[in-house]
Amino acid sequence: MLKGIPSILSPELLKVLCEMGHSDRLVISDGNFPAESMGKDSIVIRLDGHGVPEVLEAVLKVFPLDEYIDEPVSLMEVVPGDPVETPIWDTYEKIVLKYDKRGKEAIGHIERFSFYDQAKTAYTIIATGERALYANIMLQKGVVQPEEQ
Amino acid sequence: MLKGIPSILSPELLKVLCEMGHSDRLVISDGNFPAESMGKDSIVIRLDGHGVPEVLEAVLKVFPLDEYIDEPVSLMEVVPGDPVETPIWDTYEKIVLKYDKRGKEAIGHIERFSFYDQAKTAYTIIATGERALYANIMLQKGVVQPEEQ
Amino acid sequence: MLKGIPSILSPELLKVLCEMGHSDRLVISDGNFPAESMGKDSIVIRLDGHGVPEVLEAVLKVFPLDEYIDEPVSLMEVVPGDPVETPIWDTYEKIVLKYDKRGKEAIGHIERFSFYDQAKTAYTIIATGERALYANIMLQKGVVQPEEQ
Amino acid sequence: MLKGIPSILSPELLKVLCEMGHSDRLVISDGNFPAESMGKDSIVIRLDGHGVPEVLEAVLKVFPLDEYIDEPVSLMEVVPGDPVETPIWDTYEKIVLKYDKRGKEAIGHIERFSFYDQAKTAYTIIATGERALYANIMLQKGVVQPEEQ
Amino acid sequence: MLKGIPSILSPELLKVLCEMGHSDRLVISDGNFPAESMGKDSIVIRLDGHGVPEVLEAVLKVFPLDEYIDEPVSLMEVVPGDPVETPIWDTYEKIVLKYDKRGKEAIGHIERFSFYDQAKTAYTIIATGERALYANIMLQKGVVQPEEQ
Amino acid sequence: MLKGIPSILSPELLKVLCEMGHSDRLVISDGNFPAESMGKDSIVIRLDGHGVPEVLEAVLKVFPLDEYIDEPVSLMEVVPGDPVETPIWDTYEKIVLKYDKRGKEAIGHIERFSFYDQAKTAYTIIATGERALYANIMLQKGVVQPEEQ
Amino acid sequence: MLKGIPSILSPELLKVLCEMGHSDRLVISDGNFPAESMGKDSIVIRLDGHGVPEVLEAVLKVFPLDEYIDEPVSLMEVVPGDPVETPIWDTYEKIVLKYDKRGKEAIGHIERFSFYDQAKTAYTIIATGERALYANIMLQKGVVQPEEQ
Amino acid sequence: MLKGIPSILSPELLKVLCEMGHSDRLVISDGNFPAESMGKDSIVIRLDGHGVPEVLEAVLKVFPLDEYIDEPVSLMEVVPGDPVETPIWDTYEKIVLKYDKRGKEAIGHIERFSFYDQAKTAYTIIATGERALYANIMLQKGVVQPEEQ
Amino acid sequence: MLKGIPSILSPELLKVLCEMGHSDRLVISDGNFPAESMGKDSIVIRLDGHGVPEVLEAVLKVFPLDEYIDEPVSLMEVVPGDPVETPIWDTYEKIVLKYDKRGKEAIGHIERFSFYDQAKTAYTIIATGERALYANIMLQKGVVQPEEQ
Amino acid sequence: MLKGIPSILSPELLKVLCEMGHSDRLVISDGNFPAESMGKDSIVIRLDGHGVPEVLEAVLKVFPLDEYIDEPVSLMEVVPGDPVETPIWDTYEKIVLKYDKRGKEAIGHIERFSFYDQAKTAYTIIATGERALYANIMLQKGVVQPEEQ
Repeated sequence: MLKGIPSILSPELLKVLCEMGHSDRLVISDGNFPAESMGKDSIVIRLDGHGVPEVLEAVLKVFPLDEYIDEPVSLMEVVPGDPVETPIWDTYEKIVLKYDKRGKEAIGHIERFSFYDQAKTAYTIIATGERALYANIMLQKGVVQPEEQ
Repeated sequence: MLKGIPSILSPELLKVLCEMGHSDRLVISDGNFPAESMGKDSIVIRLDGHGVPEVLEAVLKVFPLDEYIDEPVSLMEVVPGDPVETPIWDTYEKIVLKYDKRGKEAIGHIERFSFYDQAKTAYTIIATGERALYANIMLQKGVVQPEEQ
Repeated sequence: MLKGIPSILSPELLKVLCEMGHSDRLVISDGNFPAESMGKDSIVIRLDGHGVPEVLEAVLKVFPLDEYIDEPVSLMEVVPGDPVETPIWDTYEKIVLKYDKRGKEAIGHIERFSFYDQAKTAYTIIATGERALYANIMLQKGVVQPEEQ
Repeated sequence: MLKGIPSILSPELLKVLCEMGHSDRLVISDGNFPAESMGKDSIVIRLDGHGVPEVLEAVLKVFPLDEYIDEPVSLMEVVPGDPVETPIWDTYEKIVLKYDKRGKEAIGHIERFSFYDQAKTAYTIIATGERALYANIMLQKGVVQPEEQ
Repeated sequence: MLKGIPSILSPELLKVLCEMGHSDRLVISDGNFPAESMGKDSIVIRLDGHGVPEVLEAVLKVFPLDEYIDEPVSLMEVVPGDPVETPIWDTYEKIVLKYDKRGKEAIGHIERFSFYDQAKTAYTIIATGERALYANIMLQKGVVQPEEQ
Repeated sequence: MLKGIPSILSPELLKVLCEMGHSDRLVISDGNFPAESMGKDSIVIRLDGHGVPEVLEAVLKVFPLDEYIDEPVSLMEVVPGDPVETPIWDTYEKIVLKYDKRGKEAIGHIERFSFYDQAKTAYTIIATGERALYANIMLQKGVVQPEEQ
Repeated sequence: MLKGIPSILSPELLKVLCEMGHSDRLVISDGNFPAESMGKDSIVIRLDGHGVPEVLEAVLKVFPLDEYIDEPVSLMEVVPGDPVETPIWDTYEKIVLKYDKRGKEAIGHIERFSFYDQAKTAYTIIATGERALYANIMLQKGVVQPEEQ
Repeated sequence: MLKGIPSILSPELLKVLCEMGHSDRLVISDGNFPAESMGKDSIVIRLDGHGVPEVLEAVLKVFPLDEYIDEPVSLMEVVPGDPVETPIWDTYEKIVLKYDKRGKEAIGHIERFSFYDQAKTAYTIIATGERALYANIMLQKGVVQPEEQ
Repeated sequence: MLKGIPSILSPELLKVLCEMGHSDRLVISDGNFPAESMGKDSIVIRLDGHGVPEVLEAVLKVFPLDEYIDEPVSLMEVVPGDPVETPIWDTYEKIVLKYDKRGKEAIGHIERFSFYDQAKTAYTIIATGERALYANIMLQKGVVQPEEQ
Repeated sequence: MLKGIPSILSPELLKVLCEMGHSDRLVISDGNFPAESMGKDSIVIRLDGHGVPEVLEAVLKVFPLDEYIDEPVSLMEVVPGDPVETPIWDTYEKIVLKYDKRGKEAIGHIERFSFYDQAKTAYTIIATGERALYANIMLQKGVVQPEEQ
């Protein structure tokens, strides 16, 4: 553990977040996501037993979202016809707003298989134990501003 | 790079500082210190080209000093009879004071060969390019307080 | 994740718990414990961001305590004169009782440095993010009875 | 060994089953299957000397079948004209029914070379010593329901 | 699998049995034996889910017992006062007799902690899932006679 | 060395032969064959100083030839116009006949570059020191029959 | 550290610069460049906390620029319409002139995505902590002349 | 294979013989010698299926015996009272004489357990398939004379 | 060092030359050749500080040139219009003639970029410190004749 | 190769010289020295085919000798009674004098077995092909002065 850094960020996760650069992507996946097979060319970091929101909150404390694109945060679009509710998205919007003034505007939705394709080329996949549906979320790293250090 | 974390802390160094626990020791060594041979059982992290003060300042921003012992910071005692001046120690005192209210009181001096013996069992040695004399410094990690996260 | 197995048990932890045998010891350590340096000869598994009780509960669901010794559970004795309270021990007693009929009787207390010495030879150390004091706990594995499978 | 987990599931197999996610596939192969060459991009786990049924039974105790597709279990179609009998399939149907209410309906048959192609992209291949003919079986992992843990 | 070689002997086990030489020792351990910690300096081979007798029978088919010592087979002595029965020893005697004309005479019993000490320096430990008590057995390899090949 | 297994089969070769399955191919190459470059995706096992016939004989003692194809043994066709004699092929025929009732009928000849292409995808290449011309030989593994163990 | 060699050149960087040959390319990247993902097929060397100019100066002291092409130094072209200023380029010109008589003439500008494509095939990427905009720079190694040693 | 070098010397063996220096020792062991366990701190090279004499002859073609000690060749003394014959020693004497003018005089005999102790500290152990008794032989490397290259 | 083998052939080079087979290619490159990047799929062996001729001479002492093709030795064609002299080629011709009766006839010249393409698929690249121009040379290994050993 | 650095210093050697610190020792050994066995705990760097003087000269160009001890250069004392001449020592004295004003005074002689003991704890051993007698030399690294960079 370190001062000023959320303790949920494991040593290895901290290293990986730090070595990512502008435009690298990160997936925080739910407990049933096939993180290991999707992430064969990525770095898979396990945070078993945690939910996505607490991980998202901790990550955004140190990780800037890309300001050069409109929607640096991506969620998986609900499959047409699926009556599922996605209350966890509201939670995500609130967390994003705490760390990026664009808030909800910074969040886009992409079609399921496009999401998978992008996940396969992400720099990192964090595997959580989240149980909510449609909970996977992808973040694109922005530039760390000098005044932020 | 990450928000709120000094950019001189490399990804690997951040990982190592984070995985250290209460009572683990860290050496920030000068440019002529035999870091690789002293650190055969440690993790040696190279920060070539940097001075010790800038590394010390960055480390202390995230790394608490041990409050369970009187002198969690150690310098190498000047060899009796050696007329050398150690102005860099004043710099160290000021930096320590910024992050630990004990300031100078938290700094002890140990005999040269004891210093080497303790360095050999440190968890990490950071090898800098510092040119000042008697510039090696050893830190013992304290407890991260809940209110610090 | 698997059916019937707590999701906080990561794949690697499950593997390690399974390969341990009768009399092997396991430490669940708090967030400031020097798990990596203590565990140089052990397998260190990180469960950053979790508390010890939730890990203990999940471990005991699959991990039998040794019935051949009186106190297969060990806590670190309070240092004489230290006025600290240890409310987390009550939580531990309740959890142990759920999985072992001996309950509190199965829990012993050992002197601090003996605890450290035994931790160094444990098979595994699980590093959590627990903030409570005197929260480290050591378990000795028992025999899996045929009727338990 | 662990409480409540079949002892035939080796530590490494338990780890792999646990890290698989929704839609990852697993092959339990017979003793003559070229598991190592088919599995160059998979994780091959050896359970020499065991038959497929006992492995299948143990796996299904912890591993949910995919409910999002009709036939999460696949057998290799008998080559047209081959008069072989496949009594082991009856055994498989009974075991599947114990763990998935769809029973026999959840089992599909695919052409031999398609089976091989899918086996090459499976996450894991378990190599057994099974001697029965047409005994290879492929399972697609489903979602672990919260109430199952 | 290979012609003339029991299929329970995994490829790796076959390799290890073959590379052992005169006087090297092998332990076949039960399911609760701490094989991984005892075998830190050995090669541990897992045969989860099997009993010791079937492994012993397969091993002795290819592995000669040392004829230069009286008791190349060792069992762990029953702790004085322990009323336990050890019916599995009878099974062992019959199996040994099939492959070594000395039969029961080739089997010795050694005190528990001596057994552990010798296990730690064995060349290999085979971890089975055997549930019987006092089932661990140690074999010392003999010379392969030219007429045996 | 092991009882009943030819001593020329090294521990590693035994392991590899055992882990091969139905339809995997094996090349026994002569002393000038570029085994390491051809075998970049295979397992190369060196038996320097031996001839191919003695290796072939030992391999066939434990390794069944594929009965599902007509010619599980392949030799490299003599380049048209090359007046070379290939007396070693007679030796091969005799050895094959000892272990497979099809004898010479089980041996096919394939064009030189096709041979090389197939060698590159073989599971294993055994590099011998054989000096005879056209001595490379490729074997396709068959099914181990239950009565053979 | 070594005599006559800038101390900012770490041991590993020195090794890599030395093993590069004529026409191999090197990128010195700024602090937000995705060095690790761009450099998956390269050797990534971290010099966190340093600016590009001090690294460039040290590298050119030992590293000749290619004299067989016109512009062995490449900068990333300003995206058309971007009003950004690039004062660091003047610094680069002065440094290049100190070590290569062509000075500014040796510096070319390439379109952003071409720059990225070339960076991916560079032999090495040095990741600095530089904060200036458009600060990435690529160097192509030339021939070391005999009179230079 | 190479011109002028016996083909029984495998690529790896050639490398090891070449990197040995003055006073390093080499054991050529018979087929029942526990080469892997004796050689835990050595480099073990397998030449399965060969006899010791053919290996000894090939080794001595390139490997000088130490001329600074009287008996650079060591055999294991016959255990007092053992009526065994050691005809292979005559073969060894003839081979040594071909490469070292001291012949039989260069060969000493050491007590069995001393032989084992020295074998454990040898640089290399070559494991052959030799069946003769008392066939293990140890060689101490000498100085390569300039006129020998 | 070994008797009868040039001491410039390092242990590792000797191993690699020995494991190469008929038709494998070897490049001896000059000091500015990008050996490490060209050789990403090859084995790169460094002989820093040596010239090509002394390495060529030593290699040819043990390495036969391919007699099945006309020009087993390749030099890089002088770029049309380049007035450079290539006196080192005369040296190469003399050395080749000492070891292959075809002498100069065995040497071909190939266009620069074809040379690079072939270098990339060579089995080995030896990186020397040669300063002469057009000094890179490629050799194709031939068959070792029985009478040569 | 690099500008201003002798080309005989290989990339890896340059790295190792650079990472050594004050008081670390380096051995440059002759061609018969058992460098690999002496250097089991050191980094062994091979410079086969070179003499010690050319290596010594290149090393001293970048490597300062320790000024805190009287004799940072050590040679192996001639064994009493040995009439050998050591002309190479004169060469060493001249080379040392070029780089250290103490010249011959900086060179000490230590007894043979003490030399071996110190060699075993050296940071690096450079194995050359030197043929002269008593040619091994050991250097202790000094402090790099700021004005030297």
